[in-house]
Amino acid sequence: MAQLSLSRRLRRTPFTEGVLAAGVTGYTVYNHMLLPTVFRSVEEDYHHLKSAVQVWDVSCQRQVEVRGPDAGRLVQMLTPRDLRGMLPGQCYYMPIVDETGGMLNDPVVVKLTEDRWWISIADSDLLYWVKGIAYGYRLDVLVDEPDVSPLAVQGPRADDLMAEVFGDSVRDLRFFRFGLFGFGGRQLVVARSGYSKQGGYEIYLEGGDLGMPLWSALIEAGRALDVRAGGPNLIERIESGLLSYGNDMTDDNTPHECGLGRFCNTATAIGCIGRDALLRVAKEGPVQQIRPLAMSGAPVPAVEEFWPVMAGHRKVGRVSSAAFSPDFGVNVSIAMIRMTHWDAGATLTVMTPDGPREAVVKEKFWN
Amino acid sequence: MAQLSLSRRLRRTPFTEGVLAAGVTGYTVYNHMLLPTVFRSVEEDYHHLKSAVQVWDVSCQRQVEVRGPDAGRLVQMLTPRDLRGMLPGQCYYMPIVDETGGMLNDPVVVKLTEDRWWISIADSDLLYWVKGIAYGYRLDVLVDEPDVSPLAVQGPRADDLMAEVFGDSVRDLRFFRFGLFGFGGRQLVVARSGYSKQGGYEIYLEGGDLGMPLWSALIEAGRALDVRAGGPNLIERIESGLLSYGNDMTDDNTPHECGLGRFCNTATAIGCIGRDALLRVAKEGPVQQIRPLAMSGAPVPAVEEFWPVMAGHRKVGRVSSAAFSPDFGVNVSIAMIRMTHWDAGATLTVMTPDGPREAVVKEKFWN
Repeated sequence: MAQLSLSRRLRRTPFTEGVLAAGVTGYTVYNHMLLPTVFRSVEEDYHHLKSAVQVWDVSCQRQVEVRGPDAGRLVQMLTPRDLRGMLPGQCYYMPIVDETGGMLNDPVVVKLTEDRWWISIADSDLLYWVKGIAYGYRLDVLVDEPDVSPLAVQGPRADDLMAEVFGDSVRDLRFFRFGLFGFGGRQLVVARSGYSKQGGYEIYLEGGDLGMPLWSALIEAGRALDVRAGGPNLIERIESGLLSYGNDMTDDNTPHECGLGRFCNTATAIGCIGRDALLRVAKEGPVQQIRPLAMSGAPVPAVEEFWPVMAGHRKVGRVSSAAFSPDFGVNVSIAMIRMTHWDAGATLTVMTPDGPREAVVKEKFWN
Repeated sequence: MAQLSLSRRLRRTPFTEGVLAAGVTGYTVYNHMLLPTVFRSVEEDYHHLKSAVQVWDVSCQRQVEVRGPDAGRLVQMLTPRDLRGMLPGQCYYMPIVDETGGMLNDPVVVKLTEDRWWISIADSDLLYWVKGIAYGYRLDVLVDEPDVSPLAVQGPRADDLMAEVFGDSVRDLRFFRFGLFGFGGRQLVVARSGYSKQGGYEIYLEGGDLGMPLWSALIEAGRALDVRAGGPNLIERIESGLLSYGNDMTDDNTPHECGLGRFCNTATAIGCIGRDALLRVAKEGPVQQIRPLAMSGAPVPAVEEFWPVMAGHRKVGRVSSAAFSPDFGVNVSIAMIRMTHWDAGATLTVMTPDGPREAVVKEKFWN
């Protein structure tokens, strides 16, 4: 671990006061903002996330708001996912690609109305791409970053906690749908979504002033449910196969390489900027793809640079995220593997900073 | 200070091994990359920077490379600075603005040839804006992030150190000019520039493989000059009035508000996207502007959020960067102040987290 020098450039959030009071011990920086990553320890936070409920300050999932008559057209230009069937009230996970088919971001997109959308972004300034395209095409839209800070409630007891604060009707929300729920005299967008596979919600807080009241209301209401402050958990997200933009994929990668082909309707996504570039890979498939990889031996260190994956003396891939899983008793990891060696059961060698490790390609992720 | 959770997403650099060996104690994150900020202490590093010579890993100053027949046209679209007189071999500091005149970045731009430019960026993904504009306008250019990692040599003894490694001819480089200098069998772009006012150079290393040889050569050659590893120093940069994008200015601000009007030729920068929006402010001047502000009393803490600047009960500005200056015996700071109170000598009150402080607007920055 290293010390982080704080400055205004690494933005605080409407919940930072609560995060500090809860004893945060580790941050990362995400979209020029502080993202709490650790409270007690990665392992303790992991066990708790999988058994109780946590409140996560994910304000760093900044929104790119697209508003105006051309909003729908613009959002379709960004993604190979076919949006014609998407209704207001729905959230879609969308690969965003450039003209070469390279991934620029992998947000969840919230369709508020036909002409108003929020793109809830991963760690890159997607605002700049969307503004550039809107300007270059002279589209009739407004594009900006509104004052919206998501707060996630994740874990098996998330429904019970949310019902305490927002009423029982919140339980009826379907996966990747949102509704409007009252808090502090305001209507908030609340979606059933989140960056874990333990179940839960994301609350899109508009206006920072309600930040601490909302944080405190959730912490208070959750006492009997053993609520704690938490954050996206490295171990749980790898077990769950949840990719991280900048870690597991970059603009070098197509969605198909990332195993996101199911979110691409390349044949019918008319208007998508990267469509031409993706037609061939959509038909023939990629030559390398994301795979779950289990590594034997003692807990591995954090991945700070890609670890080469070898088949004998031949490099056939790289590990981008890895952690020891207490629940599965093995080092779980996310790797990009060439098609010659990506079948489940393939045995490979990962060159970690601590030396080579035996590894095996798994059929599917753990959660 | 907080702990930083390391991951592949916060990229290491070709010099990270040297930085670690030199005993780095603090990082920030800049363009998704580690930027070393502290070695011994901010104060010790400051005194040393002003008296000797330091080697800085500023790889995080990523390049946006623009190549092709439309390269010059595209770069002019990005900035209100008139580029018609710029020659290959020159570096220009350039405000980059969007269609509303808001600052998107404030890079140094290196004109390698008529059709090849490097934009050496501050902390925002300017690549996305440049790619979006190039695509929207169907320009005949290639835009990408090349494998180029700047290394800065800063301090009063920088000339002597550079001459040891690159030969005496490096001393003849004029300010904001670059030349090609041999190292390890390759020709490197070396410019007289850098993010301090202590004098020095920036070496644009192409290809990471030469990173540690270059780092080690500078450290070895500098033994007699008391060379140390360093980084952009908070105290020195405030004394020098060097702005930091994301701290002192954002896309809310025009270049004129940031005191960068002298880098804008709004009347003649034909093709600049933000030109129309800036014409009025260029003529009439802004209603608020960056000012040096001296605060009395004990050393202030780090600025993590804007500190309001008050004239009585009226808010007339905000402080975005501040530190205690040992050399000037006062808290130096960078503030945005409304025109009613921006004259030198104006006495104001800054609301710091430790309570209100008396402050006075200075005529100019300290270095």
